Amino acid sequence: MKKKIVILGSTGSIGKQALDVVSNLSDSFEVVGLAVMRNIAELQEQINIYKPKVVVVYDKVKADILKSRIPSNIRVLSGMEGLIEIATMEECEIVVNSVVGSIGLLPTLSAIRCGKTIALANKETLVVGGSLIMEEARKNNVKILPVDSEHSAIFQCLQGESSKNISKIILTASGGPFREWDKESLINAKFHEALKHPNWDMGRKISIDSSTLMNKGLEVIEAKWLFDVDLDKIEVIIHPQSIIHSMVEFVDGSIIAQLGAPDMRLPIQYSLAYPERITGDNTKLNLKELSRLDFMQPDTEKFPCLQLAYEALRIGGTMPCVINGANEVLVEKYLAEEIKFYDIPKYIEKAMKAHKSFQYNTIEEVLEVDKWVREWLKTEI
Amino acid sequence: MKKKIVILGSTGSIGKQALDVVSNLSDSFEVVGLAVMRNIAELQEQINIYKPKVVVVYDKVKADILKSRIPSNIRVLSGMEGLIEIATMEECEIVVNSVVGSIGLLPTLSAIRCGKTIALANKETLVVGGSLIMEEARKNNVKILPVDSEHSAIFQCLQGESSKNISKIILTASGGPFREWDKESLINAKFHEALKHPNWDMGRKISIDSSTLMNKGLEVIEAKWLFDVDLDKIEVIIHPQSIIHSMVEFVDGSIIAQLGAPDMRLPIQYSLAYPERITGDNTKLNLKELSRLDFMQPDTEKFPCLQLAYEALRIGGTMPCVINGANEVLVEKYLAEEIKFYDIPKYIEKAMKAHKSFQYNTIEEVLEVDKWVREWLKTEI
Repeated sequence: MKKKIVILGSTGSIGKQALDVVSNLSDSFEVVGLAVMRNIAELQEQINIYKPKVVVVYDKVKADILKSRIPSNIRVLSGMEGLIEIATMEECEIVVNSVVGSIGLLPTLSAIRCGKTIALANKETLVVGGSLIMEEARKNNVKILPVDSEHSAIFQCLQGESSKNISKIILTASGGPFREWDKESLINAKFHEALKHPNWDMGRKISIDSSTLMNKGLEVIEAKWLFDVDLDKIEVIIHPQSIIHSMVEFVDGSIIAQLGAPDMRLPIQYSLAYPERITGDNTKLNLKELSRLDFMQPDTEKFPCLQLAYEALRIGGTMPCVINGANEVLVEKYLAEEIKFYDIPKYIEKAMKAHKSFQYNTIEEVLEVDKWVREWLKTEI
Repeated sequence: MKKKIVILGSTGSIGKQALDVVSNLSDSFEVVGLAVMRNIAELQEQINIYKPKVVVVYDKVKADILKSRIPSNIRVLSGMEGLIEIATMEECEIVVNSVVGSIGLLPTLSAIRCGKTIALANKETLVVGGSLIMEEARKNNVKILPVDSEHSAIFQCLQGESSKNISKIILTASGGPFREWDKESLINAKFHEALKHPNWDMGRKISIDSSTLMNKGLEVIEAKWLFDVDLDKIEVIIHPQSIIHSMVEFVDGSIIAQLGAPDMRLPIQYSLAYPERITGDNTKLNLKELSRLDFMQPDTEKFPCLQLAYEALRIGGTMPCVINGANEVLVEKYLAEEIKFYDIPKYIEKAMKAHKSFQYNTIEEVLEVDKWVREWLKTEI
């Protein structure tokens, strides 16, 4: 029996690699639905290859254009209603959430309520709505399987172990493209330099987040929710080679680590195949060629975003939502060359000061905060 | 309820560290029996501290001396019968086999037949009698828990995983004290130089084995039996820092590794506490101080013993017993300065040529071969 998969964000970096995995393992997986923001040209190609039953184009106008171009037996939906409908469609067993930003929140919540397994690449879902999402997952007995290489690593390290025995989660970070830059040079660092990630081929947003270490900050928050551990048990260590994808230290002092080639298809495949492991087409690691692995302390003075994320998680409630929303806006502005590198942490800190965090009970409440911080930034900058 | 433990070889390096673990975790473990070869002075101290019900001194004369020195409510046994009796005593739940050499074989087999869990530090047991020991363990539904840091690492990496998904077992090796020596210098390498192991504080026999890489060869054979994998799925990689204790690669390309400080008390504690993990007094690894890990190919030209072990395992049957017995004799001769460094592999290879391997069905058959190779070497050297 093939597992039936819906991919939200199928034309993004993770979405495309998820389709790659499906192509390589077509005996194991079948795509029943695809959703994109607006790239209908690429979606049309994907439709021809994977023959989904339903597709979503978030942009209504583009959805209508696509409809006229593809066979009428394929349903075309649009907007948030479309995303929710495809994420909850009856035939689907696993929803791969690989959209960018907090837009993934509502479809994921709906999928959980329908008992779908979630392969989660959209970290904003947990950063923004972690307590609610995890509570719903528990209530509905739904598995949230991390796709991020770090969280997939931790998840793998925890197989057969009891989470009460965790003494520390050690998230590794490449350190990003600016690891060796000094602070003075960083002041004027350009976005295209930030896009040159040393190890991973990623989308633009996550590449900038990687260059500020905000990506690791968001991962710390994500780890807190996924693995239900206290903040002081989550540590970040710089490991420039991105070979050890993360580690778990247990109470007895033993550390279990997961290693692999820097190829996102491995954690994607793992999340789709879980609890099985399948022989795939993934790049294997040649340890003998590897020669060495380095480790160092992150420099939080040079990269203040990491500390801001810890601080937001310490405050809790809606504060992680504020840093996430602010960061999304600021990264866009940085990519548009409207602000400079250190304006990202500067305005995130300002937004944190302007917000009074509270414990949310509904997803609408956090989405209000998300909206607020985006508006607030417009008046600030 | 405390777990009741018998330690075979309690005055050896592993035995003493096992007692350390018991001292640190006296709420979890209790010693009911101790066995030594002849060191009654140290055994007497251990008796005072751990208050075992039964002790064994393999040397009959020493056993009688001890008897006159300790309270009469402690039973004192001797010889192989003594070892077998203590390994099968009713109150015991776990037998720690940390004797040196093939002497551990019969007591272990007897303990298995009585359903005792085995914490196995004596690698000769599996090298010499692997097929029989594992078959008996299966029949009696007995767990063989590895104490060797490498095999403990592999065992930990396999928790929650299916062994059918193993694509490769990667045994790490420090490379020993002679890793950077050239072949010419090795010809005249003295045993006291071999005893200076860079990372581990170990007994004399295992230190020499580490310097020739025979230790790793024996571990390859041990891994084959413990984890039931084909020879071509076991790989050795040099990792001088001894931080990654070993790894498992799975079919999907993911590698799980176990890391820890080079402190034998960690794997010992793990084997005693399994399937639990207990907060202990073990040295924790500081990854940020660690700074780097290196990996390289083993040099089998400089260290031929590793290849000889692979070859013996490939031939199978009684051949691993031959290399093990020959190696034990040769290491003693090297320690006595009767032979030189490269005489060890030279005579092992000769012994292999002189022996026609066969599939054994009883432990007596392999012990005959063990006896034969020791006699044969006497006439050869």
